[in-house]
Amino acid sequence: MSIAQDWFEQHRPRFQQAQVACVERNCWSPFPETPGQYPDAPQAQAAGLAAFQAHLGGEQARRFALDQPGITGVLGAEVSPYTCKPLGIAYPHSDVDALFDAAGNAIDRWSQATVQERIGVLMEVVEVLFRDHLFELTQAVMHTAGQSFNMAYAGSGVNALDRAIEALVFAHQAQRAVTPHARWERQFGPSQITLDKTYRLVPRGVAVCFACASFPTWNAWPSMMASLATGNAVIVKPHPATILPMAISVRVFREVIAAAGFDPNLVTMALDTVEQPIGKVLVQHPKTAIVDFTGSVAFGQWVERNAYPALAFTETAGCNTVVLESADDLDAALRSLATTMCMFSAQMCTSPQNIYIPAGGVRTPGGLVALDEVGRRLAEAVAALGAAPKKAAMILATIQSDQTLALVRQLRDEGATRGTVLLEPRAYVHPDFPDARTCTPLMLQVGTGERDLYGAERFGPISFVIRCDDAADALGQATRDVAQFGGLTAFLYSTDEDFIARAETAYARAGAQLTVNLTGAMPLNFAAAYSDYHVTGLNPAGNASLTNLAFVASRFCISQSRRPVRAAQATSTAS
Amino acid sequence: MSIAQDWFEQHRPRFQQAQVACVERNCWSPFPETPGQYPDAPQAQAAGLAAFQAHLGGEQARRFALDQPGITGVLGAEVSPYTCKPLGIAYPHSDVDALFDAAGNAIDRWSQATVQERIGVLMEVVEVLFRDHLFELTQAVMHTAGQSFNMAYAGSGVNALDRAIEALVFAHQAQRAVTPHARWERQFGPSQITLDKTYRLVPRGVAVCFACASFPTWNAWPSMMASLATGNAVIVKPHPATILPMAISVRVFREVIAAAGFDPNLVTMALDTVEQPIGKVLVQHPKTAIVDFTGSVAFGQWVERNAYPALAFTETAGCNTVVLESADDLDAALRSLATTMCMFSAQMCTSPQNIYIPAGGVRTPGGLVALDEVGRRLAEAVAALGAAPKKAAMILATIQSDQTLALVRQLRDEGATRGTVLLEPRAYVHPDFPDARTCTPLMLQVGTGERDLYGAERFGPISFVIRCDDAADALGQATRDVAQFGGLTAFLYSTDEDFIARAETAYARAGAQLTVNLTGAMPLNFAAAYSDYHVTGLNPAGNASLTNLAFVASRFCISQSRRPVRAAQATSTAS
Repeated sequence: MSIAQDWFEQHRPRFQQAQVACVERNCWSPFPETPGQYPDAPQAQAAGLAAFQAHLGGEQARRFALDQPGITGVLGAEVSPYTCKPLGIAYPHSDVDALFDAAGNAIDRWSQATVQERIGVLMEVVEVLFRDHLFELTQAVMHTAGQSFNMAYAGSGVNALDRAIEALVFAHQAQRAVTPHARWERQFGPSQITLDKTYRLVPRGVAVCFACASFPTWNAWPSMMASLATGNAVIVKPHPATILPMAISVRVFREVIAAAGFDPNLVTMALDTVEQPIGKVLVQHPKTAIVDFTGSVAFGQWVERNAYPALAFTETAGCNTVVLESADDLDAALRSLATTMCMFSAQMCTSPQNIYIPAGGVRTPGGLVALDEVGRRLAEAVAALGAAPKKAAMILATIQSDQTLALVRQLRDEGATRGTVLLEPRAYVHPDFPDARTCTPLMLQVGTGERDLYGAERFGPISFVIRCDDAADALGQATRDVAQFGGLTAFLYSTDEDFIARAETAYARAGAQLTVNLTGAMPLNFAAAYSDYHVTGLNPAGNASLTNLAFVASRFCISQSRRPVRAAQATSTAS
Repeated sequence: MSIAQDWFEQHRPRFQQAQVACVERNCWSPFPETPGQYPDAPQAQAAGLAAFQAHLGGEQARRFALDQPGITGVLGAEVSPYTCKPLGIAYPHSDVDALFDAAGNAIDRWSQATVQERIGVLMEVVEVLFRDHLFELTQAVMHTAGQSFNMAYAGSGVNALDRAIEALVFAHQAQRAVTPHARWERQFGPSQITLDKTYRLVPRGVAVCFACASFPTWNAWPSMMASLATGNAVIVKPHPATILPMAISVRVFREVIAAAGFDPNLVTMALDTVEQPIGKVLVQHPKTAIVDFTGSVAFGQWVERNAYPALAFTETAGCNTVVLESADDLDAALRSLATTMCMFSAQMCTSPQNIYIPAGGVRTPGGLVALDEVGRRLAEAVAALGAAPKKAAMILATIQSDQTLALVRQLRDEGATRGTVLLEPRAYVHPDFPDARTCTPLMLQVGTGERDLYGAERFGPISFVIRCDDAADALGQATRDVAQFGGLTAFLYSTDEDFIARAETAYARAGAQLTVNLTGAMPLNFAAAYSDYHVTGLNPAGNASLTNLAFVASRFCISQSRRPVRAAQATSTAS
């Protein structure tokens, strides 16, 4: 038995549980949800921290070892949002054509392996990432993307691994639907024709996978898995600000693939700088067959429009909306909203931004609560989270980019002239990292006349309380934002079942995943692998969904060969 | 029970058999293979002929009744390739925006029906087309596309209905993979969160389906089924030369859909003329969500490049290749090739065109047969088929377009100066239709230096015997044609198992469906629904395959809604 098949057998129980979870879409994960539940947690966390620190350079940059082809130099200028100091890591920079050539050469043997063998290798990648690198990745995500330790562990660690497994499940399902062999017999006039048919799964070719700055692994791992499981090679293009998590990932993929006897150049990394981006070159490279893109709406739409003849799978961003019509427990609703608005300083593609409230106020069991009061209480709830540094550190974490701080300042000033500043942004002092780049949320209250202000994703801790005519107007405005500007998530509070039903239909059509009347400890925008579909593909927030059959089914093609069965063969097979 | 669900129950046995056939890919069809096996064949054929004749106008065009929205006038200038006389049918011509608006309005209720209901309605469409219109369609295809009676019955009739059912099977499979409801429970810190989740299938919107002039139903029916089964509406755009088969189809779809209580504007027809085409307007209409295109490579590639944000599924054409390396029975191989080259005067996207033969000749049990002799014997076999008018009528049938005759003449003259004319084209006299537009095949023998002559699809009865260095060169040239110019089918004769294995790998990569060493009564390019995948999507001959999961999976999206389960609900559900 091949190593790959051996790994498949070893991971089969976990894979089968994942298959069931993807059908039933209930809550399941093979991984501990919190860092404290990780086996030998203190030791593992210390080892992960040490592994991360070993990557760091001092005055002189330290070279990250990655033995991929075509290396022409080094690149790397990452700065930790926690220390605001350079990480000092120099990554090998390869010639793009050399990467494509090597990837192209690696595909043949890989595509001739069985689906189970490919899944076996990739399930082993998941296992190695989890077992040997999770806290190293956690630190790497913290000090590039700027996430909190807990989010980096959960959201960028185990939950991202879950999404990776999920992609393997769907890749397996789509490929399993193709029978490898068939015998076909038919009468043509007086003669019987018997054909043996063979169906091969043929990969598209070389995939390019763009990872984003703020949440690199969560989208990139499933995309890589979807392409690799269907026989393709992948060139990973990390955001220049967030290379380390992907560099560690790429190295693990390469090591595991090589250990199984396949060509490690199935997975390589292409780098660029903010000043000299290579994104368009990669997308339009003649050997690019698939593009997975996570990042800005603008570049995502360019990718969708210009990737041809490559396939494009995009997940960008949008105006995630809230409609606050009525609530049984308004305070609980506002607390949940506040927490979700603060989570990683709203640098998530699922963070709510536009909060629509009827001018007449919000209905509660104690009567109508005026819009202004709702806005004030929401701002207070948000302020409370930013006031306690330890809580702020856990929830808000840091700001990934200076540009985001600049945007907050700009919108604060513009908002003050065109509406009301409900909450002034300020830096908070991180208890462990006093130099951390931080910012408590900016909240503005405006009318629907200021749509140009909120009618786009304003990346970072920026939100708008928007006065609407009434509940119907609120829903209409919110779903129009989604359809026009894109939207991944949506949040509704209402005690009116008719209104909820209308909202469900309207948001389903607009294509935002809706959460209704949720309060309590779960972040409203938490997306569970195996259960929550991420992005619908129905609006400008992206054309692909994590993960459904459409995410994998076109990454491979089916070639067939058929030939007559000789009488002798037909007999021997029948016997 | 709804009418639609009732129909599903009624057609369930047939549908389940089709599901099994799509997995096992063996030979199956619910329909009789030949016109003579049709129930009450003589009467049914007479009734079909009468129904066709009732469509025809005389001096004054007869209006085709189709009560779709936005009718502004009439169009129609079809000419029968059998009589070379106008059919005299005036079809209603609708304003494009009116069709899109009506289609958009029709989607809502249709998308809210269950998958089984939609499949039920569409299986009933299949049944009505078969039971009430098959011979009417057969005549309509003969007198527009120019196919023979037998091919119009089999290829454009029952086989096309099989492909339609096949598309329904895959649409069902892709949608069935999405569970409609899930309950999800997880601990967040001290609190238990229990969510009920609802997953909706949301169609993309309005699909535009282009049907081609020579084989309208075979591609259009499965495309229409794929879009409709996933909840979309379809606007059909027939080729101006071949409207009647699609007009009859559209009317049947509309009648059956209306009878089930849905809006018939789910299926409408948009018309244009050769002089004023509306193809680009339809593809780039802001409400177009899906484009299915069958036709020329040039427009197909334009569609793929310009359909964004609509999805594009294309099937165009290519250089279908033959490699003749060695044969146990060379005469049998040449007879099969000759028949296939003559079939419908090679006006099929699967017809062979470029025949690669080693300069040293073809190995046979009786020794090497020189290339020139192989060419001569192949030409003789082709000539024999064209010599007997009755046989010619059955196999060659007619030439759909005058342009094809012009191309034959042009290439005959060019070929004579750059190579050898192996077989001179000529008109043959059709025994039943003395005015039929006919042409026996042109065959040219050239060297690989004349690649510009054969390096594109030369639509019609035109083929090239191409002298290659040796077998490896023949395979290399042939698969290069496929990769560069596109190719759907490929044909290999070889007694060398190593060479066959190399050819299988090379053609699989290039993406042509290969038939090896087939001789006898089956046309080499016969593509069986439920068994043969048509088009791989790997080369310029098209990006979509009939039918796999990728053909259907992205035609719908998944929107979800989730909300907490109240304690009381949780209990009552559990009890």
